[in-house]
Amino acid sequence: MTPDSLQQLNQRLLEFARKRDWEQFHSPKNLSMALIAECAELVEHFQWLSEEQSMVLSGEKKEAVTLELADILIYLVRCAERLDVDLIDAANRKIAINEQRYPAQQVKGDARRASEY
Amino acid sequence: MTPDSLQQLNQRLLEFARKRDWEQFHSPKNLSMALIAECAELVEHFQWLSEEQSMVLSGEKKEAVTLELADILIYLVRCAERLDVDLIDAANRKIAINEQRYPAQQVKGDARRASEY
Amino acid sequence: MTPDSLQQLNQRLLEFARKRDWEQFHSPKNLSMALIAECAELVEHFQWLSEEQSMVLSGEKKEAVTLELADILIYLVRCAERLDVDLIDAANRKIAINEQRYPAQQVKGDARRASEY
Amino acid sequence: MTPDSLQQLNQRLLEFARKRDWEQFHSPKNLSMALIAECAELVEHFQWLSEEQSMVLSGEKKEAVTLELADILIYLVRCAERLDVDLIDAANRKIAINEQRYPAQQVKGDARRASEY
Repeated sequence: MTPDSLQQLNQRLLEFARKRDWEQFHSPKNLSMALIAECAELVEHFQWLSEEQSMVLSGEKKEAVTLELADILIYLVRCAERLDVDLIDAANRKIAINEQRYPAQQVKGDARRASEY
Repeated sequence: MTPDSLQQLNQRLLEFARKRDWEQFHSPKNLSMALIAECAELVEHFQWLSEEQSMVLSGEKKEAVTLELADILIYLVRCAERLDVDLIDAANRKIAINEQRYPAQQVKGDARRASEY
Repeated sequence: MTPDSLQQLNQRLLEFARKRDWEQFHSPKNLSMALIAECAELVEHFQWLSEEQSMVLSGEKKEAVTLELADILIYLVRCAERLDVDLIDAANRKIAINEQRYPAQQVKGDARRASEY
Repeated sequence: MTPDSLQQLNQRLLEFARKRDWEQFHSPKNLSMALIAECAELVEHFQWLSEEQSMVLSGEKKEAVTLELADILIYLVRCAERLDVDLIDAANRKIAINEQRYPAQQVKGDARRASEY
């Protein structure tokens, strides 16, 4: 069976870290910091744009944003690997929870925070 | 060909948003905010733990952390969908860049920031 | 001379931490995590609002946001205390740098990132 | 009566924004994004350091961290100004809440999250 693209990515990142002897720095605590720092670089691209502008990025900006998304995925996969978490399984379980929590008919067109219902 | 697990996840999330008429809120700007807010919930789990403690979580904490990782993946996939970004391709391109930037022999065991080299 | 309001706040927070024997957890590393987690709670309040809506909050939401701003200031002051940083002096020095970096005539009405000039 | 240092800072930042016609970008939503992006730059300095290392920064690193703290304060003050929030009053009210929530005798030396009690 062909390994999944996310599994292949995980394997490549693991080898990257091991070849550089960087696993020693990759505690979940540290990786959560690296992950949020990458997210913030994404946020920074959008902070002075309107919502509309954020949907139609120029080619150069689009490429920069694409690489930020890549960085986020990279640290997310590293973090999951260190904690032995199956990301796809976790996401599917979380969606099932959200389907219960936000019944389509009840929340249609309404984005208030869950806690505010 | 069987769609990839990440593609399946993307499809499921798209349907989830559409059934709730939530696409109107899902500008890249807004999604970047939701994404970093989820990352922060991960960070919050680790903020008072030592690095060692972050590696050996109790069952209950492990499950809570797993669902935070799921939330991060969910918003990351949504954001990539809105921007028409192929996450796996982007990550592989970024790793290739990092391999150039951090030659294994030069950075072995050293985690200083790239910019500090 | 009356101590400044920020100095009084710093003193009160120091006593709060010492009475609870919490200084042991307050490394700059950990405090930076707590600080960003509080910021994310602020972001969460605004993530599905338009810019316009974020300017006219309801009374209840306004109070919740006010207390998030308080949390951010609290951890910022704690972090500065542990690093022996004078926040007001640092801010004034940074504004002077920004005045050089963004001459009023050159950047008027333009919020592009500094690095993009 | 001499204005407080935080009030003076607020005034200086307001003039800075007005001279550049930047108030149009300074919605609370946008400022919360800029604020968390600055926090992340602080986090980035600490992400691969041990807690011990984060307490004893080199001169150059210390100065860089100092200016990150300044940036955080700057956006926090801007955000409070746009929302008409008195930061010092809010912080003192929040500390009073925390004193109730975490009685010194009960939480001594224990940094578990409030929600976990």
